[in-house]
This record gives sequence, structure tokens and C-alpha cells, in this order.
Amino acid sequence: MSKNLRIGIIGGGRIGKVHAINLTTRVAGVEVTVMTDPFANKELEALAADYGITRVIKDYREILGDPDIDAVLICSPTDTHATITREAAMAGKHVFCEKPLDQDPDVIRKTLDVVKQAGVIFQIGFNRRFDHNFRALRQAVIDGSVGDVHLLRITSRDPEPPPAEYVRVSGGLFLDMAIHDFDMARYLTGSEVVKVHAAGAVLVDPAIGREGDIDTAITTLWFENGALGVIDNSRKATYGYDQRAEVFGSRACASSTNDTPTTVSLSDAEGVRSEKPLFFFLERYAESFAEELRDFVKAVNDGVEVPGRKAALNSVLIALAAKKSLETGLPVEVDRE
Amino acid sequence: MSKNLRIGIIGGGRIGKVHAINLTTRVAGVEVTVMTDPFANKELEALAADYGITRVIKDYREILGDPDIDAVLICSPTDTHATITREAAMAGKHVFCEKPLDQDPDVIRKTLDVVKQAGVIFQIGFNRRFDHNFRALRQAVIDGSVGDVHLLRITSRDPEPPPAEYVRVSGGLFLDMAIHDFDMARYLTGSEVVKVHAAGAVLVDPAIGREGDIDTAITTLWFENGALGVIDNSRKATYGYDQRAEVFGSRACASSTNDTPTTVSLSDAEGVRSEKPLFFFLERYAESFAEELRDFVKAVNDGVEVPGRKAALNSVLIALAAKKSLETGLPVEVDRE
Amino acid sequence: MSKNLRIGIIGGGRIGKVHAINLTTRVAGVEVTVMTDPFANKELEALAADYGITRVIKDYREILGDPDIDAVLICSPTDTHATITREAAMAGKHVFCEKPLDQDPDVIRKTLDVVKQAGVIFQIGFNRRFDHNFRALRQAVIDGSVGDVHLLRITSRDPEPPPAEYVRVSGGLFLDMAIHDFDMARYLTGSEVVKVHAAGAVLVDPAIGREGDIDTAITTLWFENGALGVIDNSRKATYGYDQRAEVFGSRACASSTNDTPTTVSLSDAEGVRSEKPLFFFLERYAESFAEELRDFVKAVNDGVEVPGRKAALNSVLIALAAKKSLETGLPVEVDRE
Amino acid sequence: MSKNLRIGIIGGGRIGKVHAINLTTRVAGVEVTVMTDPFANKELEALAADYGITRVIKDYREILGDPDIDAVLICSPTDTHATITREAAMAGKHVFCEKPLDQDPDVIRKTLDVVKQAGVIFQIGFNRRFDHNFRALRQAVIDGSVGDVHLLRITSRDPEPPPAEYVRVSGGLFLDMAIHDFDMARYLTGSEVVKVHAAGAVLVDPAIGREGDIDTAITTLWFENGALGVIDNSRKATYGYDQRAEVFGSRACASSTNDTPTTVSLSDAEGVRSEKPLFFFLERYAESFAEELRDFVKAVNDGVEVPGRKAALNSVLIALAAKKSLETGLPVEVDRE
Repeated sequence: MSKNLRIGIIGGGRIGKVHAINLTTRVAGVEVTVMTDPFANKELEALAADYGITRVIKDYREILGDPDIDAVLICSPTDTHATITREAAMAGKHVFCEKPLDQDPDVIRKTLDVVKQAGVIFQIGFNRRFDHNFRALRQAVIDGSVGDVHLLRITSRDPEPPPAEYVRVSGGLFLDMAIHDFDMARYLTGSEVVKVHAAGAVLVDPAIGREGDIDTAITTLWFENGALGVIDNSRKATYGYDQRAEVFGSRACASSTNDTPTTVSLSDAEGVRSEKPLFFFLERYAESFAEELRDFVKAVNDGVEVPGRKAALNSVLIALAAKKSLETGLPVEVDRE
Repeated sequence: MSKNLRIGIIGGGRIGKVHAINLTTRVAGVEVTVMTDPFANKELEALAADYGITRVIKDYREILGDPDIDAVLICSPTDTHATITREAAMAGKHVFCEKPLDQDPDVIRKTLDVVKQAGVIFQIGFNRRFDHNFRALRQAVIDGSVGDVHLLRITSRDPEPPPAEYVRVSGGLFLDMAIHDFDMARYLTGSEVVKVHAAGAVLVDPAIGREGDIDTAITTLWFENGALGVIDNSRKATYGYDQRAEVFGSRACASSTNDTPTTVSLSDAEGVRSEKPLFFFLERYAESFAEELRDFVKAVNDGVEVPGRKAALNSVLIALAAKKSLETGLPVEVDRE
Repeated sequence: MSKNLRIGIIGGGRIGKVHAINLTTRVAGVEVTVMTDPFANKELEALAADYGITRVIKDYREILGDPDIDAVLICSPTDTHATITREAAMAGKHVFCEKPLDQDPDVIRKTLDVVKQAGVIFQIGFNRRFDHNFRALRQAVIDGSVGDVHLLRITSRDPEPPPAEYVRVSGGLFLDMAIHDFDMARYLTGSEVVKVHAAGAVLVDPAIGREGDIDTAITTLWFENGALGVIDNSRKATYGYDQRAEVFGSRACASSTNDTPTTVSLSDAEGVRSEKPLFFFLERYAESFAEELRDFVKAVNDGVEVPGRKAALNSVLIALAAKKSLETGLPVEVDRE
Repeated sequence: MSKNLRIGIIGGGRIGKVHAINLTTRVAGVEVTVMTDPFANKELEALAADYGITRVIKDYREILGDPDIDAVLICSPTDTHATITREAAMAGKHVFCEKPLDQDPDVIRKTLDVVKQAGVIFQIGFNRRFDHNFRALRQAVIDGSVGDVHLLRITSRDPEPPPAEYVRVSGGLFLDMAIHDFDMARYLTGSEVVKVHAAGAVLVDPAIGREGDIDTAITTLWFENGALGVIDNSRKATYGYDQRAEVFGSRACASSTNDTPTTVSLSDAEGVRSEKPLFFFLERYAESFAEELRDFVKAVNDGVEVPGRKAALNSVLIALAAKKSLETGLPVEVDRE
């Protein structure tokens, strides 16, 4: 057995903690030797200690020169992703970075040029690719069950809208929320998006509108292979996190529905009641967060392919094109690598 | 009990026969006194006789002056619908006409002006409004369960494409096939479509493309009440007739799936197998064809509201806008009454 | 085409009316020339007239000598079934008789001996055999999908208990209600029941207990082919008529669930709500009542096999054995033909 | 926060390993300080080391006197459960013991008397009580949704039969397999079983019959509160591990179905295909194995109630009664505490 991959986690916020727990309890072949966070405090230290992570420091730059660190997970705020990725790559560390790498395609390109020159592994955190349902859909395309893809449908609705302050800095619905769906569209069809048309509305929360954003959208996709796709997004589904997809092709239609806490139904005089979907992404995609890291380890050790440059870049290019389509009302061609 | 409504069926093709059988076996308060078809033959006479319809003639004009006919069902070829509707209305007959009334909005308007002046009942054959599933979706909107409508999704796929010769004269996917979905969109949301954007492709059958038509489409809809909608169409679903809809709103999401021949599933070493949807519209919408005629009788007798002028006209206007959007690549505003 | 089968319906109660409507509107190749009922009144005459049945009389014996009657449907009270069956058979009429033919196996045997000597067709009204779901289960056994049958499970629950006065004369849960399930057990497995064990309780309505009957039961079945089976019955399911079955075998498990009015589900903050089963037997088995009569016509015309002597007799023998098992607490061997 | 519970795992077979992994990765507030197994080898040591368990020894008695051990998990062969439980209890260790504690009720009683006198916590490994689906069913009974329980149905089928050699020493289907279902019956209804009737057959594998056992069974249960229940068991379901339950009561029917690897369905010309249930107990009940240990920790720390004396004893008493019923063909009263 190869020796453990030694990992430093940069950023101790919500997703940093999720990764810390997964890496120490559910992913084989790794050890987390350090967490860094400029606001590191007793609470973070205690949580880290519970999972055997004894070193918690404030400045991530300290660990870049540390020869005992093989790789870093970048879980810091979005606007630091590109800089830290470059620094880490130049320091010879493999990089797993939360999405998006940046909102500016040029920055993404330059950053990933650095990564390439450094010869390190780079993985972008599109965890939904590691979800059991979406993997099975993808598999049905790969193994030919679906045949040629004709239509893709993605429904992606959040259980509750973010606060207006978050919306303000988020880049908007397409860059913040639908970007996952754009990557999923590429993943499920195995084809690049060449054009998009977006329709949007403010129906959930006027405060979102006041920030210049939308909360409801329908985005049409044209794929390189000729297929068409559509994504519907809402920031608020009262029944929870709605994450479904369907790939329709010349041989079959493969559909996934939501995961639920239990399979129990209750039939009474009012009807038959069953469970809502799992509440939000931490619940629905819990397993996928562990699984993406298992693949990160395999990518470093065995060269397994993981979502990298194209995923990081093209998803942003689609999101920017959708944004432009919404502004102009016209279909917009999508740049891509 | 009021006396029976005496009906003449004009057109003895597939749908004319379906209506003849339904009217004589499943609809109360009517009698079919005559069928007309320019190609009436022994076979049609035999079928008619089986259902107690003893008069089968070639020229529909014979019955327009017949005082013993209260109403006509127009099941003749599409290009005769408007003319016969006008003639029947002027003869004082109530009219049930298969869709579309015409492909030209001006013809529709003028025809329905005549109907109005004649003071007769006019119903257009949008039978899907009488489907149990779609009625229940509509009910969930009306009774407030759904709340304000935010998103509408319709999936409408045929089990097999029509022959190229049919495509040539059909008016194309939007006027021939999606027109039902456009009417359904108006019905389910209770709001008019004000703008559409259509994306189309030829993925099922190149022969359809050679006729200048498409076989796969994604149409985005903007509604008067602010909601967005999307329809995906395909001319060929290998698993049968796929007719689903979903209305997503501020309080709930109401979804309908397909009807199946049985509820039986078979679990074995290969997985769990269950039934495909009912094959095509005659099977899936069988009951709706009887139900729409029950409402036609109620419309004549009791003034019950049925899909009339707006349904006949606006669905065509949406289809024409979708066609134009496909040609221009741009969103197109929809005229409407 | 053979000439129409001319049918007289004996008994104008609920099921007699259902058959009258089905025969006149949904079954080809028949005409109903007369209905008889000792309590025939204006209302029955009006209903009959609506369906083209112009002769309504009080005494069924009048029609037994009528050469224009080919067959009778016996829908009179249970205690008259055997007598009328004998008289009709001796008069050369084919007989369709509602279940049970009688509660006494000896009477059944003697009656069916008469039928046999008369050489007429006899069908007992086990309509559930003609239900789409159960037919598909049976088909999965016949075509080998299920393999050797190991286990049969039937759930059969009514939406509401009968009144105590009815219970008193009904013969009890096994003869009145579970008899359908006993016949279904024979039908689905294609094997005879050789032994039963019954457990019962009064949990729904103490008044049923005061009549010496039970309202809740679990009956274990041993089949001739070695398989085991179990039926659970309740007189009151708050959510409606619960009619499910499952055949488990060496290759697969075939399961049927309930039919519902629509496929619509509503997801909101409270969960996902879908429809209750169709309310009761007239709704759930509506189609099967027409279908069994279509087969009755085929039995007369073409010798198609229909549930006859074995079905009529063995189901009662199983019910009597179950009753005895409940009384003694012991498993009871089942007589059978 | 209370200090960690220090646990020794006795037995390094399949279930011992599962517990070792769960305790070290998914259960808070514990540390596993030692594993013992008379056949401990390099492989077990390596697995233990992977999870930070550095002490692996052969003789469990060494750890009974160790003051640094608070509790033991007994995962050794069944015939050692009672002895080790007694020894551990007398040494002041809390005990979590895999089921069954013993096949002899007297041994169970005496063992648990010792446990009681020692004042330690005892939990029997009925992990299914901690399954998400069954917990939700139980909750629907507790919160009154179901009303008074009238009928309980459990379907419990294994994906493949055990080898004949295992069957020989297993105690037979009721003590080895259905014992889980008997405990589940007590758990779901909240009532004790007072009488059972069992029917059995050898349909899966004649070799099982040659060992004097059965592989297919239907067991009827009478509960103290008047409800009836039925369990159907098979040693071989071709489609995988079938674990369903249904509690039917005066207000509602609560049903659970199987868990599946994904929610994906594939619709094509052959039908609609979806996933088989999770393969076997390690997959289906994976989470429950962690959850039962979380409750064990809570039982020690906070006195939370866990399945103990009654669960350990009464489940065996029901199994023995079922066995006797099968032998005699008669219903058998069940002893209970």
C-alpha cells in the first residue's frame, strides 16, 4: 500500500469542516495534518482535535513550504481560490479547490496554466458528479443504454433563498447556483455546451431583485453533439432540495428522482403521504463529498481522471453566457476549451 | 330530464369513429342521428350500425338544413374545419370542432365571429383538458395548493414519428403537436403566454428535416402573470407516449406522471421492471375524449364553459410565434385575445 | 359475425344495474332483452329504458320459457342463486351467476351437476380475475417470469364495514369477503389450496363481534404444489379499498399495487401527498365487470374457459375450512374437486 | 463533554470488523482500545491499525480485568455469547452483545440476572430497530398516526441461502433469521407476542431440508393488545434483500419499502427498469450498525433505553414457539417476560 497522502485544509468554514470530517473518517489513504483559517479559534481547534487534527494555524502560507504536505484542499472564500491555487501549485502541492476557481475566465485560464506547468493534480469541487444518482445516469449514457442523447432535463431548486447580502456578492444565480447544473449538463451528456438562452424572473423574493439578480430561471442549452437541454432553477422549493435529472435519447430515457430520508408512506383518510427530499446539499450530497475526495486520492496516486481544467473553466463560461443572454434577451454562443 | 341532444358527426375517420362510439355508449343525453363522410363505405356503415347509427351519408351539407340535428362534430380534414364551422353555425347548429380550427389566425377570428353572431356553442377539441391527471393539476392551482405559479414544466413526447408525407402538410411540430401543450400551458397556469423562445433539432428522423420540420424541441414560455414555463417535445420516445406536467409555485409543486396499463412490477436478478406508459393518445386520453363530449352536452344545455375562442385562437398564435422564434433564433412576442 | 347473444338479467339491484349498463354500452355481441326483479318499479324501468332495455318484469320464471333468451345473468339475492341456476339450466339457458352460488357445497355440487347435464355454459362472477393488475400477475406466473411459486401474499381490505344486519346473514368474513381472495389465490398460483389456518379478531366494530363474526383476519394457505400463501383482511381501511397481491417465486417476485384516480402528487412543506386507492369495488373493478361479461360471450360462442365449477365450489370449500379453523384454532384440510 | 467510552471488541469476524470501523469513524465519544480474537492474525492487525486500534490480542479474558476498558462488544460465536456476557458483567464492563444471547431461554435469563446484579448496561444487537425506515414506522405508531394497531405485516427475505453446514448449527430459520423479525414485530407494535402459528416449506434448497430445516415460512402472530401479525420469510429472493414492513391501524396504514442504490429508472422499449434493493444486511443496514452503537454510548452515559433483557429473551421465546408450532402443526402460546 502506498503511504498516506498528507493533506492540509485551507479554510475552516462549513465546507472545510465537512471535508475534514470526511477525510479523517471516511476516506482511506489520507491524513489531515493541518487546517488553516485566518479566524481559527478554540472551537475550530476542538473540532479538529475530535478528528485527530492537532495542528490548526491562521496563515495558509506557512504550510505551502512544508515538505510534509502533499496536497491542499482550498475551502477559503471564492475570491482567494485562484491565488491560493497558484501559490500551492508553484509550491508543488496537489490542489483540490472548491468551485468556482474564479468568476473571470482569464484568471481561471492563467491559474490553470500555472497548475499545468507545476505538474500537480488539480481537481475542482463539482461534487455532484460523485452523487450516486447522477453517476448512474451518466453510466446509462456511457454504456449505450440511452443511445444518442436527444434531450437533457435538469431540475435544480433550493429549499430556501440566500440572504440578499449573499446574493450581492455571489455573482448571481447562474454563477452561484446554476453553475453546478451547467457542469452536470456537460457531465451527463459528455458533450460541451455551445449556446445558451436564459429566461429569468424574480418570483421568490423581491430583495433578490433589488440586488439585480433573479431567483427563477429556465435555461436552454445547445450541445456540441446536437442535443438540446433545459435547466429549471428556483431559489425556493417549499418541499426541500429538488435535484432531478433526465437524459432522453434514441434508445431510452434515464431519469433520477430525489433521495428521501426514508421509504415510509402513510395512507389515511387524507391520502398517501411520503417524505420530502433530503433538506439541502449537505444532506443530499453528503456521500458525494466523501466520494470526490476518494477520487482526489486516486487522481494523485493513480492518475484517475477528475473534473479539472475544462470543468472549472467551461462551467463558468456557460454561466457568463447565460448571464449575458438574460441581459440581452438573446441566445449567446458559449466560448469553451 | 331535457330531451336528447341530436348530433351529426362530420367525418368518419379515426377520431370521428372514436367520438361515434363514445357518444353512443358513454355519454348521456345525446343521440347520434347521422354520420357523414365523402368516402363513406360499407365498413363505416357497419360500424355505425353496430352503435345504432343508421344514417350514413356522403355530403355533410345535407344535414345542415336538417331541423332534427342540434349539433355537429367536425372531424373532417383540418383544412375544412373553418368552412364547415361557419356553415354549421350559420345553420344554427352547435359546433364541436377538432383542433386546430385553422392555421391562420385571421381565418380563426373571422370564423369565430360568425359563430358568435350565430349564437351557437363552439367547442374546440382540446381533449387533454379533460384528462384526469391534468384536471387534478389544474385543480391544485385553482384551490390554492400550489400558491402563485412560478414554473411550469411539460414533457410531451410521441411514441413514434409521423411519416414524412404527413409532416409536409401538418404545419410542423409546433402547430401539429406542441399546440396541445401550448393550450395545456394556458389551462394549467390560468394565464396567457406573452412571449416564447424555441430551440429545435432534427434528431429522430432526417426525413422530417428534409421536410423543413424539426422533431425535437425545447420551448420557453413567459406568462402574463410573471411565471416561466418550458415544454420539451420529441417525436419519438421508445418507451411510449410520455405526457407529464408539473406546476411549481410558492406553496407547492404539483406533478403528474404517466398512466400505465397495470401497476404490476416484476423484481428479479436483473432489477425491477414496471410498465411503460399507455402507448399513444387513443389509449392515454381515451377517457378524456368521452369527458370532453359530456361537457359539450353541458355547454349546450347548461352553459358550462368549454374551451372556445381563446383556446382555439391563442394556441395557434403561440405555435406561430414558436415557429417564428425557431426561424429567427430570437424570442418572439405572442399576440393574443 | 355470429348473431347477438340475447340476455335476460335476473335481479335489478346494484350489481344487476352495473351489468345492464356494461352489457348495453361496453360489451359487443349481446343484447339485453329483459330485466326481472320482484320489486321492479318505475325507477328501474327508467334506467333500463335509458339503456334500451324496454322489457322489465317481476317474475324471472316468465323468461325461462322464452325462446328469444339465450342466457341469463343471475343477480338476485344469494339464497336464490342455486335454484334459479338449476331452473335456467334446465330451460337451456346459459348462466352467469354472481358469487357465491351457494354457501352449502352439496347444493353447489348438485346444482352444477344439473348444469352439466343441461350442457349449458356456467360462469361464476369472480370478476377480480378480469382485473388488469391481477391478470398481469397471473400472466407473469404463466409465462415463467416468476418461476416456481413459493409464496403468495394478498392484502384485501374494505374501506368500510358492512352494517351488522348484513353481517348477520352474510355467512361471515370468510364466505362473504375473503371468498374473492380464496379464488384469487387459486387463480394466481394455478394450484389448489389443500389446507388453511385462520386467525381472526374483532378490532374494527364490536357490533360485528356481537353477530359472531370477525372483521380482521390472517389466513395461511398451503397449496397443492407446495407453495405457501397468506391473506390479510380488514373490514375497514381508512384510506380506501386496498387490493394488492404479490407472487414470489424461484425467479422473480411479481407485485401489484392499488389503482388511483390520478398520478398527481403534491409536494409541499408537509411532505409529498398522492392519491388514495380508488374507493371501493365498483370503482376499482369497474373495468373487470365489463371484461368478465366479454368472456361470458366468448364462452358461449367459442368455448373460451371461464371460472366455472371448480371456482364456484372450491372457493366455498376454502372459506368453510377457514371458518372451521377460526372456530377450532387448528389448521383444517380443504376438500376440493 | 464526558470522557470517551473505552471499548474492547471481542471477536474479529465480519461483524466485529464492521463495529470496529463504525466505532472509530462514525460514533462520537468512544475509543476502541483493543480487539481480541483467538485467531487474530496480521490481517486483522493491519485492519485494526488502519483505524487506529493498536492492540490486538487473542484472549478476551485479558481485557476483563483491564481498568482502562469501560465496555465490551461481544462479536464472538453465538455459543460463547452468554458466558462472555456473564464474565464481562461480573468484571464491571458494560456489554453490547450480538444476537442471540443464547438459544436457551434459561441460559438467557440466568445471564441477564447476572447482568442485573452487576448493574451494568446490556444491549442486544437488534440493529434493525435503528434502521431509518423501521424507526419511522415505529414513530408513526407512537405519535398516533396509525391509531390502534390492527395488523402487522413483515416481509423478510434473504438474497441467498446459507450453506447447509451453517444451517446445521444455526438453530434453524426461526432462531437464526426470523428472530430479527420477531423482535421487529415487538418493536413496531409496542406489544408482546402471545401466540404464534408457523407454516414452513423447503422450496429453495433441498439441502436445507436434509438438515431438518425449512427455507420458506409464514408465521402468524397474536399480540397482547389484540392485533394480528404475519411474517413471510424466504432464504432466497433473486432480486436481493427484501425487507419491508407495514403497520395497519384504525387511523392509517404505514408502509416501508426497500432501500435502493439509486433512484434512477430507465424507460425503453422493454419497459421501465429501476434498481433492486440493496444487496444484503451489510448494505441495507449499514447505517443502523453505527446508530445502534451511538445509542449504546448514550445508554451508558445517559441511561437512554436500548433493546435489553426483554428483547433478548422474548425474541428467542417467540422463535422457539414458532419452531414448536412448525413441528406440531398447532398454534403455540408464547412465554414472555
